[in-house]
Parts: sequence; structure tokens; C-alpha cells
Amino acid sequence: MIQVAVMGHGVVGSGVTEILLKHSEEIAKKVQEEIYIKKVLDLREFPDSPIADRFTKNFDDIINDDEIKIVVEVMGGLNPAYDFVKKCLENGKSVVTSNKELVAAKGAELLKIAEQNNINFLFEASVGGGIPIIRPLNQCLAANDVYEIDGILNGTTNYILAKMIKESTSFEDALARAQQKGYAERNPAADIEGHDACRKICILASLVFGKHVYPDSVHTEGITKVSLTDVEYAAAWGGVVKLIGSVKLTDGKQEIIVAPMFVSDECQLSSVDGVFNAILVKGDSTGDVVFYGKGAGKLPTASAVVADVMDCVNHQTARRNIIWEDGNADNILPFEQTKYAMYVLANAENTEEALAAADGAFGKVEKLTRKNAEENELAFVTPVLTYADFEKAVEKFEQSGAKVVSNIRVAVI
Amino acid sequence: MIQVAVMGHGVVGSGVTEILLKHSEEIAKKVQEEIYIKKVLDLREFPDSPIADRFTKNFDDIINDDEIKIVVEVMGGLNPAYDFVKKCLENGKSVVTSNKELVAAKGAELLKIAEQNNINFLFEASVGGGIPIIRPLNQCLAANDVYEIDGILNGTTNYILAKMIKESTSFEDALARAQQKGYAERNPAADIEGHDACRKICILASLVFGKHVYPDSVHTEGITKVSLTDVEYAAAWGGVVKLIGSVKLTDGKQEIIVAPMFVSDECQLSSVDGVFNAILVKGDSTGDVVFYGKGAGKLPTASAVVADVMDCVNHQTARRNIIWEDGNADNILPFEQTKYAMYVLANAENTEEALAAADGAFGKVEKLTRKNAEENELAFVTPVLTYADFEKAVEKFEQSGAKVVSNIRVAVI
Repeated sequence: MIQVAVMGHGVVGSGVTEILLKHSEEIAKKVQEEIYIKKVLDLREFPDSPIADRFTKNFDDIINDDEIKIVVEVMGGLNPAYDFVKKCLENGKSVVTSNKELVAAKGAELLKIAEQNNINFLFEASVGGGIPIIRPLNQCLAANDVYEIDGILNGTTNYILAKMIKESTSFEDALARAQQKGYAERNPAADIEGHDACRKICILASLVFGKHVYPDSVHTEGITKVSLTDVEYAAAWGGVVKLIGSVKLTDGKQEIIVAPMFVSDECQLSSVDGVFNAILVKGDSTGDVVFYGKGAGKLPTASAVVADVMDCVNHQTARRNIIWEDGNADNILPFEQTKYAMYVLANAENTEEALAAADGAFGKVEKLTRKNAEENELAFVTPVLTYADFEKAVEKFEQSGAKVVSNIRVAVI
Repeated sequence: MIQVAVMGHGVVGSGVTEILLKHSEEIAKKVQEEIYIKKVLDLREFPDSPIADRFTKNFDDIINDDEIKIVVEVMGGLNPAYDFVKKCLENGKSVVTSNKELVAAKGAELLKIAEQNNINFLFEASVGGGIPIIRPLNQCLAANDVYEIDGILNGTTNYILAKMIKESTSFEDALARAQQKGYAERNPAADIEGHDACRKICILASLVFGKHVYPDSVHTEGITKVSLTDVEYAAAWGGVVKLIGSVKLTDGKQEIIVAPMFVSDECQLSSVDGVFNAILVKGDSTGDVVFYGKGAGKLPTASAVVADVMDCVNHQTARRNIIWEDGNADNILPFEQTKYAMYVLANAENTEEALAAADGAFGKVEKLTRKNAEENELAFVTPVLTYADFEKAVEKFEQSGAKVVSNIRVAVI
């Protein structure tokens, strides 16, 4: 029998205990050992839980219990999760977490402590919820040079964008609907501003390229500025607007970004609907591989956590070789040097003249048209250029009297 | 340093040695041990290989070499692969294979020998080529009850069907094109008759439900009878024709089949194009998860093989817990009891009367229409019914004078 503790009894945490209790026999059969939940840490009371007597409000009950070998951290947030997890690892307890904020902020440090103590720190559930991605990247694709990852990493924003695309719902109404359905938090900033997707692409980038990428070194744009007009022009161009987290190697540096992008209808990521996530991995040997599924939710995420717990049981002596070094902003390609073709929406008194000015400023642009366009509206896609050059070109273009209203990158996937 | 042998230097085998040589440093770093190819077994000569001096035509050079700890079998076919692999396992050598025919025919037996000898028998590459699927099923989704798998498991047939769907190319022309492009063998029977897809769904079914499913107990239909008319009616119905391998639990038995099916445009599998594969896994906790990528090809398949070799190196003492029991046809739901709605294409002198007869025979059917339909043509979709009842209903229907030309299942995915 192996004893575990679960820190946090919220959505994911209650799912973890539910699965561990409900599937205890099958799980014991698979790992050839019974998994026993000895403690659940939560400040709230859950008198109706079948294991109500094992709840505690005191972390000391976990850290001081030498029989507890594996600790599940599903509290979320950086504090006190970071402090608790660190102490567990330092005390020789393997840790499994679904906490993307924690892994994105402290992954390198915690992995190092785990390595020093010859125990496991696993976090499959931190990216893609129930979609297997960390383990496949680390093991199945181990013989590959993975050189690029592009993903729809946040279900809430994908739900909102899909509503805008398919039902011409405005951003505000789509967000309200997502909140009604429980897909978006009452304070939705972490989702709609792109921070959640940013943490996930940071974790994937760190894992694949071996150097920790911190969220604050990643250029991150949310979807709050995306309009129905943009969505219509994306369709006219032959694609859809998706919030993409992307990382690839460019000149030995990580080119990493989170931003809404035009994604071609030809691309597998374009058809990802609703709250689903999809992660496209490009490897030198495998070519394109896509992982698709629900990126969040109680049971999908909890099942990924439990699978990690089972992996810990299977690897009590020979730990999982997951590790990355610390990193810093020097490993990141400066945002101004990233290159994209840009969709531009502008207002101009004379759109013919403005188009000529656009050609002059950006290089030959591709004009886009839509039904019921406003009279003063001009939309086009520029050639590929660095963001620094794009900003200069915008300045030059606006000297013609035109005014840029919106711009969105065209994904190169 | 760990010494390996590679049996077979064909497409996949040459890819394996290429990756092991080209990526030797990164691989050694990842598994913390150098992997050395000591022998390559092939009856042909490869004087230009950088390791030409390590080739042998004699299996004894491998089986009698106690320094060789891991053997890669990429010869394909059942014989002599089965004999060689069995001897390797019995002699304490872990085996990695991409040979789906071998695993589908002898998996339970070989896994048992591996277990008895506390070594690994791994076969990630046998299903889905470079798409990670065996390991995610066995590990990442371990905390799930996986209750259904549906997959596009054969790239050749998917390429042919996609040509028929998108370019209205006839089956024969699409097959010829696939052969020109090297996607189909000169003797394409294993692909177009569904045997290849059948082996793969057998492996997945055995892994997930724990009892070996032998290919000869699976009802298997290929795509040779699918016509452009069927493809047009699928579009009229709101979907596409795909060759689907499917397994699910029904009344405690495995309901398993390989057949062309109507797949709704709403389903993720409908958009899988060209030579790509996609495998949809349904679990009680995760919901739907899809794995997508190139299902074949030299480097994708070889990279999956090498990843398994690396996993063997990492698990020299604690073997991977992959195992399933032997099974027999009693575990399989008899084909006549499987239930599907059926698309039916018929000829009738009076299509109005025939439609009424169809309602009488099958229960209320859904009529389908297409442009430029022949005068005597009638197409419809029946209610869901067992295959036994379908056959009886066809007999009754044909008593009206109508003649069934084609029938295809409607996938329930």
C-alpha cells in the first residue's frame, strides 16, 4: 500500500479523490499496489465526503507524516502551493500537480529539487487537462528533434472565438455566455488576456527546448480586441481567428508568443471547436502530430493527475527523467524580431489611395473584401515582416491619413 | 553503453539505424547511456552503410551475443519474425517492434514471455506509426475506463477515399495514384481489404480491454466496393465515407469491426485528410481525446521505434507493465448482433413504391437525394438495427422488386 495526500479539494481535487476511490480496484491492479488517500488538505469542511475523517486544515499533518510518499497539489495559485510543494519535495515526497501557474513560474527549481532527492515531480495535467501531452513529448517523441509547437491551449477563449465565428456573436455576448455555462470565471482576465495560454506554452517550451521560459518574457496578447469584423475578414482570407500559443527555434533562440492569429482553414487547428484544445507538435522525424481533447474540466484534469500518481507508484526507485535547466530572457528571440504576415484593418477617406499607400509602406499587400463593408474600411494582409518593421510601416502608412484599427498575425503553421 | 541489434534493414529499419546514429549524442544525454548498434540482420548487402561491417545474415550472431540487451524487430511479416522475437525474449533480450502483424497475431504470448523474463516487449510503432498512442493509452489514460476507440488507422485507404471525396476520382484511379506516389503497395490487398486496419484495432482493443483479440475474429470490410455514388450520398447526408476501425464494450463483450462508414462532418475524424491517421479514444473521465498524425512512413515509424528503445534503456530493471491475457472469439460480440443505421443504395423501377417498401422493411427510412441521380436510383438511411435484422429486411425489401446495390454503416462516434 502506498499512502498519498491531496492538497486542495476544489474542482480538480474532488475529482482526484473521486477517481482514486471509485477506481481503487482497477488502479491497484494496474500499479500492483493499493493507493490510499491518507490526508486531504483544505481549509473548508466537507462533512459529506466519504473520507471526511481524513481532512485536515494543517499542512504539518502532511509534511510530518513519513508514511505519505506522494502528494497531489491541486490548490492552484502560486502561494502557498509553491511553499508546500517545495517542502514536500525537500522531504522526499514525490509531487503531482495540475498547477500551471506553479510549473510555469517555478518548474526548473522544483524539478531540480526532485532530481536531487531522486523523486518525481509530475505535471501532465498542467497543460491540456486530460489530453496526454507532457508524457508523449517527453517519451514517445524522445527520438525526435521537436522544433515547433503551436496550440490552442485555452478552452474558454476558443469557445468565445468559436461563438463569434459560427454565430456572429459579439465578444462581450460570447464571454457572458461562457460565464453562464461555467466555462469562464467571473474574473476572466487570466483566460481572455492570454495569461493561461502563456503559462502552458511556457511549460511546453521549457520541456522541449530544455531551458525554462518564464511567462513574463513572452509577448502575450489576449482576444479582447478581436472584433466580428476581424472574424469576417479572416473568413474572406480563408481561415479563422484562433488564440495561438506558439514556440519554435529561430537562430538558436526560442521564438515564443501568445496572440490571436489568422489560421488557415487547411490547418488542423482551424476546426477545433468549443472548449476543446489542440496541440500541434512538429518533429523532424514524425512530421506533424496533433493531440486533441478537452483541455479542462474536473474529471479530465483529475484523471491526468491520477495517471501521474500511478506513474509515481511505478517509478518509486527509478525516477522519471524530466528535467530542464533554468533559463532567462536571453534565450528568447526579442519580440520585435519575430516575423509574421499581418492582417490590417484600417479606416481611410479614400480607400484606393490608402491601398496604394499600404503597398508603399508594407510592400505589396493582399486586399481582402467582405460583404457590407463600411465605405471607409480597408483590409489587407501584408508580406511577412518583423514586428519592428511592421510598426515602422504602420507609421508610414498612417501618414497617408489612413488609421489602423486592428491588426492580427497570420499564423505560419 | 547498451548494445542493441536491429533485425531488418528495409524502410523502417534503415530509419532506425539512421536516427540512432544521427541523434546518438542527444539520445545518450536523454537516457544517460550510449546506445550502440552492434548488429544489423538482413539477407541483403549494404556496402555503403556507415556501419556496413556490423551487418550479418545470421540470426545466431544476435541470439548468442549476451552483450546485446535490446533487439529491434522491423522485418515485418509473421515469419521468421515470430520465431526470432520469441527466442530473443526467452533469452532475456528486450524486444521493440513495429510489426503489427506479429503483435496482432502473437501479442498475448510474447507479452507473457516478456513478463516471465522481466524484460520489455514494446510496440508503440505498430499502431499509428509516429503517433503516440500505445503509451498514452497505457499510461496517461490509465486512470480512465476507456470504453471505446474509433480510428482511421490506415493512411493508404484514407488517401484513396479523400481523393474520391475531394476530387471525384474513381476508386481505381485513386488507387493507381496512391501506388504512383508510393503510398500503396503494388499488391495493395492488405490495405484496401482492411486487414492492416484490422490488425491495428485488434492491438488497441487487446491493450485497452485486456484480452487478446485475434484479427480472424473481427468482421472486416475494405473499401473496394465504395463508389463515387456512395461518396455523393454521404455528402448529401452530411458527412464523408471513411474506413473506420472501431471497438467498444457492449453487454460485456467487445463489439469490434473494420468497415467503411458514413462519418458526420461534425466528427473530428471526418476532416482527416490524405495519408494521415487519427485515433479517437473515449474515456469515462477524459471524454474524447484524439491523436492525429502520419500513420506510416520511414522516419515517423522509426522514431517511435527508437523512443521505445530509449524506454527499454530507462526500464532495464523495472519493466513496463504492459500485459494482456489471451482471448478468444467468446469475448467478441457476434457480428450479426452489432447495431448500426445503414445507408442503402438501391435500384428500382418505381422509386416511390420502393421507398414505401423500404419503410415497411427497415422501419421509417430517411431518403437521401443527390444531383444527377439516375432515374431508377433510390438511397436512404435506415433506423439503427442489428446486422441480422438488416439482412432480413433487405430480403423483404427486395421482394418489392428493388435491388440493393450498396450499403454502408453509419458510424456512431
